[in-house]
Amino acid sequence: MLISTSIAVRQDLNPLSELAFLFADKIKCVDTILQENAYSEVSVLPLISSHIIESGGKRIRPLLTLAAAQLCGEIDERAVTMAACVEFLHTATLLHDDVVDESLLRRGKPTAHTLWGNQMSVLTGDFLFAKLFQLLVQEGSLDILNLFVQTTQKIIEGEVLQISAKATTFVSREDYFGIIQSKTAVLFESALELGGLVAKGTVDQIAGLKSYAHNLGMSFQLIDDVLDYTADEAGLGKPIGNDFFEGQVTLPLIVLLERMAGVSRSLERLQETIVKINRDQADLNWVQILLSEYAVIPTIKTLAEEYAAKARDALDVFSDSRLKDVLMQLTHFVINRCN
Amino acid sequence: MLISTSIAVRQDLNPLSELAFLFADKIKCVDTILQENAYSEVSVLPLISSHIIESGGKRIRPLLTLAAAQLCGEIDERAVTMAACVEFLHTATLLHDDVVDESLLRRGKPTAHTLWGNQMSVLTGDFLFAKLFQLLVQEGSLDILNLFVQTTQKIIEGEVLQISAKATTFVSREDYFGIIQSKTAVLFESALELGGLVAKGTVDQIAGLKSYAHNLGMSFQLIDDVLDYTADEAGLGKPIGNDFFEGQVTLPLIVLLERMAGVSRSLERLQETIVKINRDQADLNWVQILLSEYAVIPTIKTLAEEYAAKARDALDVFSDSRLKDVLMQLTHFVINRCN
Repeated sequence: MLISTSIAVRQDLNPLSELAFLFADKIKCVDTILQENAYSEVSVLPLISSHIIESGGKRIRPLLTLAAAQLCGEIDERAVTMAACVEFLHTATLLHDDVVDESLLRRGKPTAHTLWGNQMSVLTGDFLFAKLFQLLVQEGSLDILNLFVQTTQKIIEGEVLQISAKATTFVSREDYFGIIQSKTAVLFESALELGGLVAKGTVDQIAGLKSYAHNLGMSFQLIDDVLDYTADEAGLGKPIGNDFFEGQVTLPLIVLLERMAGVSRSLERLQETIVKINRDQADLNWVQILLSEYAVIPTIKTLAEEYAAKARDALDVFSDSRLKDVLMQLTHFVINRCN
Repeated sequence: MLISTSIAVRQDLNPLSELAFLFADKIKCVDTILQENAYSEVSVLPLISSHIIESGGKRIRPLLTLAAAQLCGEIDERAVTMAACVEFLHTATLLHDDVVDESLLRRGKPTAHTLWGNQMSVLTGDFLFAKLFQLLVQEGSLDILNLFVQTTQKIIEGEVLQISAKATTFVSREDYFGIIQSKTAVLFESALELGGLVAKGTVDQIAGLKSYAHNLGMSFQLIDDVLDYTADEAGLGKPIGNDFFEGQVTLPLIVLLERMAGVSRSLERLQETIVKINRDQADLNWVQILLSEYAVIPTIKTLAEEYAAKARDALDVFSDSRLKDVLMQLTHFVINRCN
């Protein structure tokens, strides 16, 4: 995977891959912690855990924890453990999310529950939650335990709000931003805050890290919701329209409703489409045409770019470094996935 | 509910109701803690939490935590908090169990997921897990946090083993006892251990409490599994045959298989019935006849009585008291539910 001459690599790599390159050894340790702590005598539990841990994704959250620690000082054992804990929480929520939204694909692989059923996804998620808190108890910091408890609660509340925002035309922008804050930005914030905390960052540094994380997470999710209408399946690794077919009402539909209100005879048909229990491919194709007709996507990209700019500003508290530069580039990268 | 003259009450009450009477005020505090800590701005979460907390059951686990604390010393605020934490964990696992085994009734009421769907049951269970650990973090003892982490893991492992023991003739007695130990006895043990710990019980006292809890829990579950074949629905509050129709293979079927092996021409038909995906009422009626023909139930009751006797012996470490007597009676009561 890694090319031997680091210069060549850096020219080729996108910022996420470069983070993975910079912290390759540490991420190996993170993966080891994840594997070792998913152990159970009941062998199906580590089996399912490994499946979802190894399907892996890009490890963006633990990479950000490591980056935060590096920016504030150095990456010690605790920082690596925190990175693993962040990924553990993410993995556990993914497993329950598979049950929750019955998505058929996760990271381009069949989700756990399509292989083992809802029952095992729920129990394996519970098992990973328990293992996460076991790691945190061993770590011994009640403050960090409390941070994970608060983070978990916010993520769950976000999931609940998202369910209540399905197949309805009554989702406001405020509702939407509350949802993506809880379901995405909150864990980004905790990932970086934890790295900063264990590396003994200053109050200003940790505030900067949290602001960077919040704004990066918001722009990341804004673009994710755009990609549900525009991405090619191969690139995204999950089917386009996945959220749409599940009845999700995200910003593209909200903006579209706003723009068609009072000006389009198709508004009523759009509303009927949004509240449909079973939206189909024809609905998606029609909505895609409307989105382009009303120039919705560029507006949302602009919004995402505003968040990205705030994220970059938040890093002013840190002196220039190669790593800071990579984190700056990352704010552009999450947006340009859109193209 | 409570009659004013305690003597009159005591003559009427079964030991479980007497525990509820003895600790009525404390249980009110426990319920208040449960209600207050189930709060969320996302109102559907406390709504579902309240539904399952108020459907309430008999609060046997928190009552046992309070009893353990009383036996070892006195019931202080921490003991009440521990009792609430034990019920919180029980409630969270019930919510996920509703998803897991798709049981249609829980405590005589529709289960959460039949009212709100699997998604909300999973998320509300997660929410209660998070709230439980928030309470424990506030409590501030890493040892107690660790005890809950270990308990949670064992319960989950028991649920997984139970799933793998569905609709198969390859469940050994050892498998079965491992399952009921994890799914029932473990939380009983933790409930009493916690009461003993916060009341500063001696090592011997806590060992006695754990042994009492283990043996009470085992006999409790043995009888529960018998009641699935023999109880009247009104009394049990959940439909008879509930576990049977879900494909559970519990001790009655295991003993029946043992006794019919080699001696009955119906053995093959029983095996076919056990591995059926959809067992029906006719299957249940036929199995009930076999159970009585092969005198299976009395054998299991005897086994439950042996556990109950061990539970009583474990209380020798405590000097005689009215409360100790009630706990002794409780070991008879869990068995006589059978009649």
